[in-house]
Amino acid sequence: MVNFPLRRATNIHAEQFLVDKQARAALDHQKPLVLWFTGLSGSGKSTIAKLVEQALHAEGRHTYALDGDNLRHGLNRDLGFTDQDRVENIRRVGEVAKLFVDAGLIVLCSFISPFRAERRMVRELFDQDEFIEVFVDTPIEECMRRDPKGLYAKAMSGAIKNFTGISSPYEPPENPELRINTASGSPEQIAEIVLSHLRGLIRAS
Amino acid sequence: MVNFPLRRATNIHAEQFLVDKQARAALDHQKPLVLWFTGLSGSGKSTIAKLVEQALHAEGRHTYALDGDNLRHGLNRDLGFTDQDRVENIRRVGEVAKLFVDAGLIVLCSFISPFRAERRMVRELFDQDEFIEVFVDTPIEECMRRDPKGLYAKAMSGAIKNFTGISSPYEPPENPELRINTASGSPEQIAEIVLSHLRGLIRAS
Repeated sequence: MVNFPLRRATNIHAEQFLVDKQARAALDHQKPLVLWFTGLSGSGKSTIAKLVEQALHAEGRHTYALDGDNLRHGLNRDLGFTDQDRVENIRRVGEVAKLFVDAGLIVLCSFISPFRAERRMVRELFDQDEFIEVFVDTPIEECMRRDPKGLYAKAMSGAIKNFTGISSPYEPPENPELRINTASGSPEQIAEIVLSHLRGLIRAS
Repeated sequence: MVNFPLRRATNIHAEQFLVDKQARAALDHQKPLVLWFTGLSGSGKSTIAKLVEQALHAEGRHTYALDGDNLRHGLNRDLGFTDQDRVENIRRVGEVAKLFVDAGLIVLCSFISPFRAERRMVRELFDQDEFIEVFVDTPIEECMRRDPKGLYAKAMSGAIKNFTGISSPYEPPENPELRINTASGSPEQIAEIVLSHLRGLIRAS
């Protein structure tokens, strides 16, 4: 650290800020980026994201997962499920993911994020090689069969309004970086597809 | 990774989620925590935070700085400067800092955060050994003399309303973990006080 030009109590402006995205990523020996999992409820987004995160972590990668569980109970607990609140929910997730990428991490985001416009809004926060959209394209019949939280049953009965795929649209990605279908193999097999795509991308340049 | 119990496409619930705060902190060989710098505009919060971050980074610590610069233009750009918006600003900063601590990082937050209630709200998000309040107790006369952005001049003329220290109160911390005064030494000397306090706290347990 160059000390002498700052050795005056009156000079409190930092002349430079050396700890930036590149410096943090170099410390982690990785390329920071966002894996954005989008798909229907029950499609397997979080399951695959967790397996991918476990594998990356085991390789010494520094990761973080953002999903409804850690966002809806904290940062976004003031938001409901109106269209406006859902868009604000995704906007904040995107901004937080951007901070994490700036911090040098590989961020795994699992959100239904059904609207093209909101996914585009998030994508535009990042450089082209920092945003990987993973379309979890599991057939809705399979998602309904799994229905792990009983949400489809409630949506079909009308007890839940504006449920994606039933009473609210899901707009499929047109050009996702990756498309997976969790009905086509074991979770580990599907996670390996994502990991194969990632290898080569996340080495520090 | 134990594969066989998950080797069924129908079993999409992750049985366990091994990548947690401890695992990420262990990868970084550090104890994650928040350094929360509070004090008047011009007191030197960001300057000291940046020097502390540079020193930690040089030691191989994984850090991230949150301040008005990266929050007000992104996550919190929908917020103004009413009392309500200022409280929401700090609430979101606290929640984001919590995510970063969960991710295993040392987070340096520099916000005037003039109200005891909002600082308490943030403190309560963390375990006791994760939150270090640093009161940047630089005399207001010195802050006004520096006035790096000309804000005190505008506040004195009435051009800026609700300016902390002039037309809005600053409630000093009663029991901060650390108190510094940037008029009492060079920025490097003051940063070293913070670093001395930190050493021993941030080693991975």
